[in-house]
Amino acid sequence: MRIEEVAAKKDIKVQWNPFLLGPVFKSLGWEDSPFNIYPIKGAYMWRDMERICQQYKLPFTRPAPFPQNGLAAARLALCPVVSDQRAEFSKQVYEAQFIHQQDISSPKTLGHILNSLKIDEDEAFAQAASPAVKTALRTNTETAQKRQIFGAPSFVTPDGELFWGNDRLEQAVAWCAS
Amino acid sequence: MRIEEVAAKKDIKVQWNPFLLGPVFKSLGWEDSPFNIYPIKGAYMWRDMERICQQYKLPFTRPAPFPQNGLAAARLALCPVVSDQRAEFSKQVYEAQFIHQQDISSPKTLGHILNSLKIDEDEAFAQAASPAVKTALRTNTETAQKRQIFGAPSFVTPDGELFWGNDRLEQAVAWCAS
Repeated sequence: MRIEEVAAKKDIKVQWNPFLLGPVFKSLGWEDSPFNIYPIKGAYMWRDMERICQQYKLPFTRPAPFPQNGLAAARLALCPVVSDQRAEFSKQVYEAQFIHQQDISSPKTLGHILNSLKIDEDEAFAQAASPAVKTALRTNTETAQKRQIFGAPSFVTPDGELFWGNDRLEQAVAWCAS
Repeated sequence: MRIEEVAAKKDIKVQWNPFLLGPVFKSLGWEDSPFNIYPIKGAYMWRDMERICQQYKLPFTRPAPFPQNGLAAARLALCPVVSDQRAEFSKQVYEAQFIHQQDISSPKTLGHILNSLKIDEDEAFAQAASPAVKTALRTNTETAQKRQIFGAPSFVTPDGELFWGNDRLEQAVAWCAS
């Protein structure tokens, strides 16, 4: 929700790269979200997120169930008809899950977001099912792993520095600007 | 290194409570430091710490081996002859490990710190071996677990809010001040 504004202030351009967390977590030995694997730490993480959202005046409702399947949303974000509005599309997917408690794997939820962006729903879903888009997402996920990414959001600078999490956003942008 | 100054600015009093991370980690299923259990995430965490220390102009050298045994240091911090200088003693233990690559389980390292604070070394080591101090550390560790603490540093406000990590320090202090 914050990256576009924070980056623009320092004249930094943002490139959004959707990838799947599932395979990344699996390769680290996590069969579920860290929110669920360690209940005590997970409870803290939800509370932390609630406080952070309050601080930034961002609405937040804890999604249930969690995590959700983001495969369809990630593929859609990579479709040619969506790519010009990838940031806006991605933010709406997060809002659907983290504000409106919607199921982001459902074509209804995703179709609604596409419509709100005036993107042709049928064309987008057709592109999302194409081998090219499926490969693009697989490649993005492999690239994330090559970059030693282990969570989201992660920020990679042009010179390869990795920053993880909302609380490192300003630092990542400052790194790019320096 | 930062808490005394950040808290003083908002007129917040800090009470240092040493506890053992080992039993806390064990109860979460971690048999080693998270830095070591997940090498990819661990490598990021060291790099992150390096960048953060740079940002605050704090010297930092990655300790080896890591983690070290903090039992003797934690017990000393709880001794009556040390308690008035607990903050300063604790900071020097961290500096010994994270700047000077010293072994903080060694009586020589700890004795040197005690001497620099003009604390009678023999008296401190005798108190550290007493049942009262051993029990105090065990109680502190149990209290940490009851408070759902899963890492260090953790900050607990008088009304029971838990904040974890250097990057939540300002938020914790603001919570107390509000």
